[in-house]
Amino acid sequence: MVLLLRTFVKTPRQAWTMRRFYSSDITASAMVYSEYGQPSQVLKWHSYRLPALTSNTVHVKFLASPINPADVNMIQGAYPIKPTYQKLDAQDDKLLAVGGNEGLAQVIAVGDHVNELKIGDHVVMAKTGYGTWRTHAAGPASDFQLLPSADNVSMIQKATITVNPCTAYRMLKDFVNLKQGDYVIQNGGNSAVGQAVIQIAKAWGLKTINVVRNRPDIDVLRKELLDLGATHIITDEELSSHETRALIKSWVGNEKPLLGLNCVGGKSATEMARYLGENGKFITYGAMSRKPLSLPASLLIFKNMSFHGFWVSKWADIHPQEEKYQMLQDVTDLMSQGKLAEPKWTQVKWDEETMKQSVDQGISGFATGKQVVLF
Amino acid sequence: MVLLLRTFVKTPRQAWTMRRFYSSDITASAMVYSEYGQPSQVLKWHSYRLPALTSNTVHVKFLASPINPADVNMIQGAYPIKPTYQKLDAQDDKLLAVGGNEGLAQVIAVGDHVNELKIGDHVVMAKTGYGTWRTHAAGPASDFQLLPSADNVSMIQKATITVNPCTAYRMLKDFVNLKQGDYVIQNGGNSAVGQAVIQIAKAWGLKTINVVRNRPDIDVLRKELLDLGATHIITDEELSSHETRALIKSWVGNEKPLLGLNCVGGKSATEMARYLGENGKFITYGAMSRKPLSLPASLLIFKNMSFHGFWVSKWADIHPQEEKYQMLQDVTDLMSQGKLAEPKWTQVKWDEETMKQSVDQGISGFATGKQVVLF
Repeated sequence: MVLLLRTFVKTPRQAWTMRRFYSSDITASAMVYSEYGQPSQVLKWHSYRLPALTSNTVHVKFLASPINPADVNMIQGAYPIKPTYQKLDAQDDKLLAVGGNEGLAQVIAVGDHVNELKIGDHVVMAKTGYGTWRTHAAGPASDFQLLPSADNVSMIQKATITVNPCTAYRMLKDFVNLKQGDYVIQNGGNSAVGQAVIQIAKAWGLKTINVVRNRPDIDVLRKELLDLGATHIITDEELSSHETRALIKSWVGNEKPLLGLNCVGGKSATEMARYLGENGKFITYGAMSRKPLSLPASLLIFKNMSFHGFWVSKWADIHPQEEKYQMLQDVTDLMSQGKLAEPKWTQVKWDEETMKQSVDQGISGFATGKQVVLF
Repeated sequence: MVLLLRTFVKTPRQAWTMRRFYSSDITASAMVYSEYGQPSQVLKWHSYRLPALTSNTVHVKFLASPINPADVNMIQGAYPIKPTYQKLDAQDDKLLAVGGNEGLAQVIAVGDHVNELKIGDHVVMAKTGYGTWRTHAAGPASDFQLLPSADNVSMIQKATITVNPCTAYRMLKDFVNLKQGDYVIQNGGNSAVGQAVIQIAKAWGLKTINVVRNRPDIDVLRKELLDLGATHIITDEELSSHETRALIKSWVGNEKPLLGLNCVGGKSATEMARYLGENGKFITYGAMSRKPLSLPASLLIFKNMSFHGFWVSKWADIHPQEEKYQMLQDVTDLMSQGKLAEPKWTQVKWDEETMKQSVDQGISGFATGKQVVLF
């Protein structure tokens, strides 16, 4: 078919445009939307024939895709990255966005001119906004990021590698030059990123002070996080007390933490910032309290602290492939060595009604674990 | 005398300690304090004989010293730098702190082994906390920082060079790599630092958007700042209006400012931060509103803005002499070329009562100008 096409197609771009809409034999399904809104109201099940393979494209089948909070925000139109509206099949001209941003897929067919991927490879998405709630996808190899091969790494670990573990990895690596034995302080210690921070920090010889919200079963949580490798746990209510100040001083001595990680915001984040040492860096990657960060000028001026944000999607957009691969290699190595555990998760069934309800539920909690669709 | 001493003194340090308390013929006076409190209650006039010159010391006489807000905070014990308590004369063992941190002095005598300074040199203080409200000082050359010689630079300009112009210079230079035509946005546009920012930015080919507090005579202020070289003036009340957003967009187009300078804090500082472009840096060097800075997480995470502090005393402590001299050279050159004007100032008479009252008044306003003691 490719040979036939070449007889009347003028440019490579035209060739690509026309070729892709020859259908393959594969029937794909996807959770799609064409307008912003409440997920259960705007998400629709869409079945279509996957475009035929061309010499420059690959076919992948999805294995597992999580439902992340950002996916919900994106469907609501409340996320800075807009979905990619695309024509999914040859029979229908409608532009549709596929939900989901993170997921694991396996290469099932490779065009003649594709050298970067081979059949059987496990891949994640190269960019945020690609759409991972679908059974199959067809596209150039550059849409996908090869995962390093590694033993003893589960499908769930691979399907949830790009957001939470990579956020934790980068925040621990890119802002402060930490050395063995240094302390890091973070809130949201029991969030998915928080748990990855605890484990990666431990693997790298760093110590963590983890702030969590107080709750009736705090001792259960405390034990879980200590088991993961947390050095110390304190509750947000304890943060500003005289006793906690003395306690933290007894832990860190004169070596105050120089890195603070914040996904909460509001008053307790300010309290946490006060524990950082001179020239410390405070990185915000979330705002679970939905309250802004309040900064006394003295922390900025006299302690020379600086306040930064981190967004892994942006990081991935502006850093070269080699750096991304190195990160994925390091993180899968930690998983492979048992130093970064599979997150708690619950399976979401791949059917229209279950998906709608599950996406509405949206933000995955610690108790139930991350919602992951298995295809 | 030095030769005699050498016969029985063992180490250079001991020699120094003993030698300095041989008195010179000079009677010095200083505004001193030995406990924290309200300036007029704790400041005292102190007359004493200046220590004799030694081979490793210099004598300076002060020409002019301003009264800065930080001087008041230091006397109140509310400043992160503590005063240096010192034994000023041979006749009295009491430890005293001399008020004032900034000032211009002239070298009047130089020990045999001092090569860095010569008689007639104009100097400023090498460190914050030295004490500049005094007629004379004696000490090693390293206590003082030579000023570059320059024509057409007034004594007042030299006496007030190290805090405000140097703060403006560093903030424009050290955080963002600005190029000709780039915009900087700042609040406190009519503060002493703000005025220096306007002038240095203009000299360097940068444009400024200056936020000032609204006031009845706003047009007078507007004209003054435009005459200094400000590109645009807006009031804090206008900051969040739809019209101002459109106006600023019409000025900057797609090249949003990447540097924001804040000495106010509170709500209007947050509003100002919203005008910064992606990856912009927001530098806090004061908090005139006495309110903390409130930061929505979206500015940190999605716009990748970062928030820093600047404190010129700290900068001076950790940077080498050559860098300080280069900065003073650049700033005096701008003054010499008429690009950085003498600040408004009023003279404070050098007597006990006037000093007490003037220091109590403390913070110098734009209307009356900076208070400067002439000796």
